[in-house]
Amino acid sequence: MSKGLPKRSEDYSLWYNELVKRADLAENSAVRGCMVIKPYGYSIWEKMQAELDRMFKETGHSNAYFPLFIPKSFLSKEASHVEGFAKECAVVTHYRLKNSEDGKSVIVDPEAKLEEELIVRPTSETVIWSTYKNWIQSYRDLPLLVNQWANVVRWEMRTRLFLRTTEFLWQEGHTAHATKQEAIDETVQMLNVYATFAEQFMAMPVVKGVKSANERFAGAEDTYCIEALMQDGKALQAGTSHFLGQNFAKAFDVKFATKEGGLEHVWGTSWGVSTRLMGALIMAHSDDNGLVLPPKLAPIQVVIVPIYKSDEELDRIEAKAKEIMAKLKAKGVSVHFDHRDTHKPGWKFAEYELKGVPLRIAMGPRDLENNTIEVARRDTLTKETVNLSEIEIDAYVEGMLDMIQSTIYQKAFDFRAQMTTEVNSWDEFVDVLENKTGFVSAHWDGTTETEEKIKELTKATIRCIPLDQKVENGACVLTGKPSNGRVLFARAY
Amino acid sequence: MSKGLPKRSEDYSLWYNELVKRADLAENSAVRGCMVIKPYGYSIWEKMQAELDRMFKETGHSNAYFPLFIPKSFLSKEASHVEGFAKECAVVTHYRLKNSEDGKSVIVDPEAKLEEELIVRPTSETVIWSTYKNWIQSYRDLPLLVNQWANVVRWEMRTRLFLRTTEFLWQEGHTAHATKQEAIDETVQMLNVYATFAEQFMAMPVVKGVKSANERFAGAEDTYCIEALMQDGKALQAGTSHFLGQNFAKAFDVKFATKEGGLEHVWGTSWGVSTRLMGALIMAHSDDNGLVLPPKLAPIQVVIVPIYKSDEELDRIEAKAKEIMAKLKAKGVSVHFDHRDTHKPGWKFAEYELKGVPLRIAMGPRDLENNTIEVARRDTLTKETVNLSEIEIDAYVEGMLDMIQSTIYQKAFDFRAQMTTEVNSWDEFVDVLENKTGFVSAHWDGTTETEEKIKELTKATIRCIPLDQKVENGACVLTGKPSNGRVLFARAY
Repeated sequence: MSKGLPKRSEDYSLWYNELVKRADLAENSAVRGCMVIKPYGYSIWEKMQAELDRMFKETGHSNAYFPLFIPKSFLSKEASHVEGFAKECAVVTHYRLKNSEDGKSVIVDPEAKLEEELIVRPTSETVIWSTYKNWIQSYRDLPLLVNQWANVVRWEMRTRLFLRTTEFLWQEGHTAHATKQEAIDETVQMLNVYATFAEQFMAMPVVKGVKSANERFAGAEDTYCIEALMQDGKALQAGTSHFLGQNFAKAFDVKFATKEGGLEHVWGTSWGVSTRLMGALIMAHSDDNGLVLPPKLAPIQVVIVPIYKSDEELDRIEAKAKEIMAKLKAKGVSVHFDHRDTHKPGWKFAEYELKGVPLRIAMGPRDLENNTIEVARRDTLTKETVNLSEIEIDAYVEGMLDMIQSTIYQKAFDFRAQMTTEVNSWDEFVDVLENKTGFVSAHWDGTTETEEKIKELTKATIRCIPLDQKVENGACVLTGKPSNGRVLFARAY
Repeated sequence: MSKGLPKRSEDYSLWYNELVKRADLAENSAVRGCMVIKPYGYSIWEKMQAELDRMFKETGHSNAYFPLFIPKSFLSKEASHVEGFAKECAVVTHYRLKNSEDGKSVIVDPEAKLEEELIVRPTSETVIWSTYKNWIQSYRDLPLLVNQWANVVRWEMRTRLFLRTTEFLWQEGHTAHATKQEAIDETVQMLNVYATFAEQFMAMPVVKGVKSANERFAGAEDTYCIEALMQDGKALQAGTSHFLGQNFAKAFDVKFATKEGGLEHVWGTSWGVSTRLMGALIMAHSDDNGLVLPPKLAPIQVVIVPIYKSDEELDRIEAKAKEIMAKLKAKGVSVHFDHRDTHKPGWKFAEYELKGVPLRIAMGPRDLENNTIEVARRDTLTKETVNLSEIEIDAYVEGMLDMIQSTIYQKAFDFRAQMTTEVNSWDEFVDVLENKTGFVSAHWDGTTETEEKIKELTKATIRCIPLDQKVENGACVLTGKPSNGRVLFARAY
């Protein structure tokens, strides 16, 4: 299976593309830029969704569903939003097809032209705030804490599976509040939810920060983000949480009667993560043998592969395997027994390595005699023989899965620490970006002009102003102008 | 809250529309024919999804995701499919907007015209079978058992919330098999899954049957369906499961190498239920006071309403309520304590009736003295005072919820039995449809011509040929021609 998977060191980009396809995660579809998420890939996304959804509900949010289509005129209502979003969109202009004259194909019926074109949602602030106008009258209606799981479309010219696709799946939270402070608190709370999810479930350390004005969401007053580092030294924005101020409330005239009898515009937030997280998960941990999945998101956590020559041997192994499986399932461990006779054990080993199953148990006739199993860890590729009379199998496996989860996280954490470099001069800045890569922590004079110049010269962007930024006087790496804190630069996905 | 809800007997249609809006289930959006599913409505849909998804997985299916867009040419590939589906669709013709000359709005960029138009999926057979071509080579790749949860768009001229909307949410299963019999078995299995879900969770009895050729899905060899009866005597198709034969395999050239070394087209099925089920659920059980929800699908199963004059009383009631809630939550019962001081108990009672909460517990100061609670059932609107020292509250509530679930089902079952009429003459047929309504069980000569004539004369359609149809010689109610079994007619949603 993994035969011929390109090596990361030789062609990281090709390695990623091939891995996504060969591990049955996703593939390109017949529609340019749109992907098919295959069952195995989708089952990982479902685990992500389930955890995130639980976290959203625990913080008081409810799910709802808003229309796929947005009237074109809505996009013009919030001035900076239209600048940022209205351009590369799928536009519905007609609502009917008819048979061609030769009867062999269908054509667009010119008589079924819409009076106003509809845009396939690239994000839903406009259609949601036009709805909130009717839902919010009084302070009693606030806060309004709503999320939706949906597909969105942004017409991308260059696409890559999971990382940048014309259609993608995501969740978008849209909340409305009575005060500015409450909306800011919500924005930060959801950033923290994302960071907790990334670190505890994806085993992926992230930097929490604020975007510079240049990288801010179109229509937001502030965009908070989590930034992760991939194994090739490039950064990836893994989630954003926007403080919208009163911008959308003003654009859609959403006011509420205050407790004190006044009438004020409400304060808003929006926040989202998408199937892009799948790309981050793959790139953060996987190796030249295939996927490495953190146990908390692995659809199959343990696979048991029997090694046998006769049916009689298989039967005895299966009986033993079933005992083990019953114990593991009772603890909520997802375990699969692969008794296919169409493939050899070695082939199966390679397949489960490719698919990132965290723990592999092999059992042969000698294991039965000795009451042992051979346990292989996907993350370290190490094996050990375990005597079943010396352990409780369920506690042992749970312990191993916890260990793998934390080992994967620690490895990514150490990598990021090693790949985060403080620089104090332009030469150093360029050298690190060119030769070492990773996050570059440097002083910046705070202007969009300098940020753009740096991007032009190095392709690096400001990933964020870290929330834990220390006050430190310094000089901008490019202009030498004064700065009072470092920001994180990187080349990014 | 429920003040002014129209009565079913006076205007069933208006009652339905008002109920959907006032119970916070859904509302019309700014986009014609598209609805907003509000948080309370969506939470019911989520419960439906969770149960159905579990049942799909237990029968061996995996979820995946396929593109929203379908190239226009795909729709012409399966001849009867294009006839049935290609017409009323949203058509994407452009992929970019630009600023208007006055800078005040956006217009469609005429230079960004797609070479081939894209159709927003009305159903996904075509795009999925074009993908399956690459997934299926050998008998080892079969069966392929895939489901997707997605939004679809059919450009409807007359829309009604949940029942018929331009965009709706659904699941669509698409499976591929090596043999005809296996595909037929799958089709029937999924019909049974739907029927089990409708009866055990929605508490809604359904008739399982096969559609006449006229009502068959475009591209199917046979369409199986479940049909339910609403309180106004109209039928509602609640789910369909299609045996596709080799039609889509042939249209998209999907062949597999057989075990015996041959090369054959695969056999297909598809099956779906949608947010239309929400409409069925509402119409099957609700009354003039509002929603009646079966406990298994109620987002809130039990509400506790305190009746108090002073804060001190509220505190004492809350302490007691918390004990009860802890016990109920431990049993998985969803319970809400409504301690809002902005509304009176009577207002709250009406609100929870409107929203269909199955069980309401009221607690006042006298209840505290006597160690009692007042329990009100939503389905029967009956109340009883229960002494807490005489019961185990968790077992009592679980028993009540089970009782409500089965009572609701039995009521709907009895109604359907009473509203299913065997008729043997045309006069009787017309009379029942006009005056009694409901399902009419009658002989039919088996021709599309007769079916269409009956529809023209009475607006009734053949809902299905029941799977449990008895062999019985008779004469067609319209033509008098011979028939060997009764079929079910009704006016339908």
